[in-house]
Amino acid sequence: MANTQGKPVAVIIGATSKWQSDGRNTKLAHGKALDDKDLPVGVRWGVGGALAQKFAKEGFFTVLTTRKASNAAALEAAIKQQGGAYMTVELDLASERSIEAAFKTIRADAGEPEVLIYNAGYLEGRDLPAGKELLEHIPVEMFDVAHAIATRGPFLVAKEVLPAMRKRGSGSFFFSNNAKSLRGTKRNAGESLYYPRVMMRTVAQVLTEEYSEHGIHVANIVIDGLIDSPGTRALPRAHNNPEIIINPMKIAEAFYYLHTQDKSCWTHELQLTPYSTKPSH
Amino acid sequence: MANTQGKPVAVIIGATSKWQSDGRNTKLAHGKALDDKDLPVGVRWGVGGALAQKFAKEGFFTVLTTRKASNAAALEAAIKQQGGAYMTVELDLASERSIEAAFKTIRADAGEPEVLIYNAGYLEGRDLPAGKELLEHIPVEMFDVAHAIATRGPFLVAKEVLPAMRKRGSGSFFFSNNAKSLRGTKRNAGESLYYPRVMMRTVAQVLTEEYSEHGIHVANIVIDGLIDSPGTRALPRAHNNPEIIINPMKIAEAFYYLHTQDKSCWTHELQLTPYSTKPSH
Amino acid sequence: MANTQGKPVAVIIGATSKWQSDGRNTKLAHGKALDDKDLPVGVRWGVGGALAQKFAKEGFFTVLTTRKASNAAALEAAIKQQGGAYMTVELDLASERSIEAAFKTIRADAGEPEVLIYNAGYLEGRDLPAGKELLEHIPVEMFDVAHAIATRGPFLVAKEVLPAMRKRGSGSFFFSNNAKSLRGTKRNAGESLYYPRVMMRTVAQVLTEEYSEHGIHVANIVIDGLIDSPGTRALPRAHNNPEIIINPMKIAEAFYYLHTQDKSCWTHELQLTPYSTKPSH
Amino acid sequence: MANTQGKPVAVIIGATSKWQSDGRNTKLAHGKALDDKDLPVGVRWGVGGALAQKFAKEGFFTVLTTRKASNAAALEAAIKQQGGAYMTVELDLASERSIEAAFKTIRADAGEPEVLIYNAGYLEGRDLPAGKELLEHIPVEMFDVAHAIATRGPFLVAKEVLPAMRKRGSGSFFFSNNAKSLRGTKRNAGESLYYPRVMMRTVAQVLTEEYSEHGIHVANIVIDGLIDSPGTRALPRAHNNPEIIINPMKIAEAFYYLHTQDKSCWTHELQLTPYSTKPSH
Repeated sequence: MANTQGKPVAVIIGATSKWQSDGRNTKLAHGKALDDKDLPVGVRWGVGGALAQKFAKEGFFTVLTTRKASNAAALEAAIKQQGGAYMTVELDLASERSIEAAFKTIRADAGEPEVLIYNAGYLEGRDLPAGKELLEHIPVEMFDVAHAIATRGPFLVAKEVLPAMRKRGSGSFFFSNNAKSLRGTKRNAGESLYYPRVMMRTVAQVLTEEYSEHGIHVANIVIDGLIDSPGTRALPRAHNNPEIIINPMKIAEAFYYLHTQDKSCWTHELQLTPYSTKPSH
Repeated sequence: MANTQGKPVAVIIGATSKWQSDGRNTKLAHGKALDDKDLPVGVRWGVGGALAQKFAKEGFFTVLTTRKASNAAALEAAIKQQGGAYMTVELDLASERSIEAAFKTIRADAGEPEVLIYNAGYLEGRDLPAGKELLEHIPVEMFDVAHAIATRGPFLVAKEVLPAMRKRGSGSFFFSNNAKSLRGTKRNAGESLYYPRVMMRTVAQVLTEEYSEHGIHVANIVIDGLIDSPGTRALPRAHNNPEIIINPMKIAEAFYYLHTQDKSCWTHELQLTPYSTKPSH
Repeated sequence: MANTQGKPVAVIIGATSKWQSDGRNTKLAHGKALDDKDLPVGVRWGVGGALAQKFAKEGFFTVLTTRKASNAAALEAAIKQQGGAYMTVELDLASERSIEAAFKTIRADAGEPEVLIYNAGYLEGRDLPAGKELLEHIPVEMFDVAHAIATRGPFLVAKEVLPAMRKRGSGSFFFSNNAKSLRGTKRNAGESLYYPRVMMRTVAQVLTEEYSEHGIHVANIVIDGLIDSPGTRALPRAHNNPEIIINPMKIAEAFYYLHTQDKSCWTHELQLTPYSTKPSH
Repeated sequence: MANTQGKPVAVIIGATSKWQSDGRNTKLAHGKALDDKDLPVGVRWGVGGALAQKFAKEGFFTVLTTRKASNAAALEAAIKQQGGAYMTVELDLASERSIEAAFKTIRADAGEPEVLIYNAGYLEGRDLPAGKELLEHIPVEMFDVAHAIATRGPFLVAKEVLPAMRKRGSGSFFFSNNAKSLRGTKRNAGESLYYPRVMMRTVAQVLTEEYSEHGIHVANIVIDGLIDSPGTRALPRAHNNPEIIINPMKIAEAFYYLHTQDKSCWTHELQLTPYSTKPSH
């Protein structure tokens, strides 16, 4: 599907979810794919899917990037049913060549992005067994993958989209990040290797200082809790404490609010914390 | 005017502005009152007036507090013309007794607040001449006034409104603060004595940790630039750099957005920076 | 005792300890005074006593301030035995007049301070029962005392000593603070009302920016753990976890190290954390 | 030279300086090598050289790592003359294999390190012309080099030395960092690409939380100013403002102080700022 109506373009890097019904985290945590047909369509694909649906509803031509297009099929169907315009582009953030090719396609078929949301995650580290928490037990390859997704990916993607935004004098470049991006912390068993996410936030700070005056709104969004999705909802701690779960549709509204902020008063970091917990810092 | 229709109540502590056409800062900076009849009604009373108009428009019974009721007469007229409901209550934040009396009136005539915005400022320090920047030149009385408005006032106001919000399980308690609240900094000539504002932010952090779980949304809003108003607009640096001026109506929208956030993802600090400047930190 | 030898002067504001063998916290926590004769003399009076002994040993005429001179008698005896020079001055930080009088005495009998360490604490809040943690339960008087010690006291003391340090072009002005000074946090049952300590740190930041260029070394020392003393050592959690206790003599060495830093590389905040715990932030 | 006397081992990663008389930065800034024979021996090789001399003086067998052993010849001569014990090991931080080989040599000839100081820097970015400040102009290779030195290097070095320190239950692992490590900031013309240094600080925070309880002292040292050396001293801004220059011997003393801190009160971040400037934050 191409952007034949010339709608403004929103690119969601990582529009599908590791926690969707057949996602990698879902399978890792639950040992199988889950059934999501009873869940609201807004939460089935976590934040990525909610962002895609929200921006499509607001009139954007929404580009879904994902590692395998088939992962986005159900999300595409949902957007279609909601009357939205979209296309899916395969993208492997670990590959410079893949990033280049994807944006060539995006520029040709959709046009220069007005909004780019970097929502990529990784699960490296989660399967390290208890007793292997310390840095000395982290394989170099794991560190390299986390770096590729959290740090180098944003750098490469920024190089693809910022020049055109700068020349046009407008655009939104948002990072979907988590509370582990606020400082370096000990990795606990079962967690991803989070500390490269601090660097993702750092890149957001750099771009804020470098590109705001050129009319580009850069922001780091700190999602400070467990995001509702088929895979997270089924976790015991979510079952027992539903008040710690964040509604991804409301997260998507927060991103959209940021995009609509007046340029006389932009917010460059937005933290979203469930009422029941203390905000991370 | 009383809240006869039983609307939800929004209290704006400091609804008028030191920078309004006949405000204290306006007279201090320009040597006289200014004419504001060509200015949009949304900016005539700075953030306080914009907040009052916004919440009135959104259906709140809006309580304007100010040191002298006459200061709010023009703002009242504007809200009335916009079809809003309001009342004005005199309040001297330096007086425990005045705070108690004001909230007795508010509870009786308007009802328990659903929203409270602490927007009080002070200008102590601005008239210290150049060469008297250092702390050793700050009179004790000046320190005491700044403390009363920035620190003790929030404490006393919190004690007035939080118990009822807690029992009801809902409410918004927001602080309108500035970038000097982020850390202790050198006072420059011509500036207010800002460092007690750090403590205002600290109180916001304390209340966030203490009252969020009771359903009360607490937030510190860092207005990181010059706010449009009759008095600021006429300053030379605003004339020469209009892109550093923040539209108070847009600030009011940001407060309203915070009030409408879903409790699964609350923001407890929101910084608002003009696109043309680097965010303070 | 007067400074007849013209030694450099170090003033320790709060040289005795609420946790010394007959201190207020000791009596509050243990119901009685404790015997300290088996404890090393360096830890008997907490940080204040250790600082006094350290600076006396390093050749300073050490001024001990305390609310009642009798509280300092045992500490005086220890310094005397170690060959140090000292005097004790009564000082009530809640009283502007007392501060003025004390520094008049200090200037007359000891001379202008070369080093001032603000080591004052308070225990307001500790006796509030469980269930009364929230801000709404804090009496105004308690807030006022905490403010007087943590915020207004430093302001008044700074006004007493900084002008002479500035004219001389040298001096050290250090704050002995704790981890609760890093941000506003929920008060837990049994804790003092700590958040005014954020303002103490803020004053340190202000003074750093204002007075460093005049040759005065300002620093906020964040003691991030339980300080050894007769009263704390006897607490069950100290008994069970001796590795969380900080040696006050080592804290005093850290203060002395700061005082001896070369002015080409001054540290303005120093956090001291036991190896067994994560540093607060 | 091998550690035949069995002294404790201190490894200085990056013991030579880009600003030494014939260093890369010196040549880049001044167009030629400089003469350093009139400079104190303590400042001739910047922080790396001062650290090496200090730890050698304190009785350590000091391992100097550098990309080319010849760069360290003059420093070696100085340590030798001061009666110190040392060896030089070539190390290219961009190469996993080089790191492995270097530590194999170190372990064989010197023994397991008691102290490791990561003092590596890079100059990538400095030669980008004015007008090429923005991230979009940073070549990928430049980003990759900065990452290799600032982020991946510490990770790999940590994996080499921490296991033995952990088993022994003691050791110091310090990072020599700068003020750009405190947050992401705009790159100015003539500056290195600094933001990966934020990640270096992040690794320090991670290691602090992970390894302190195992008896290893981790710290990030923020050198917040211009370090004296042949190359920096000759810069016009250093000439005109000698009070902004930090004495590297005093920095080395700060590192040594950290190493000698009692484990009941460790400091994990130490910022060093000239008295004449406001501390970065």
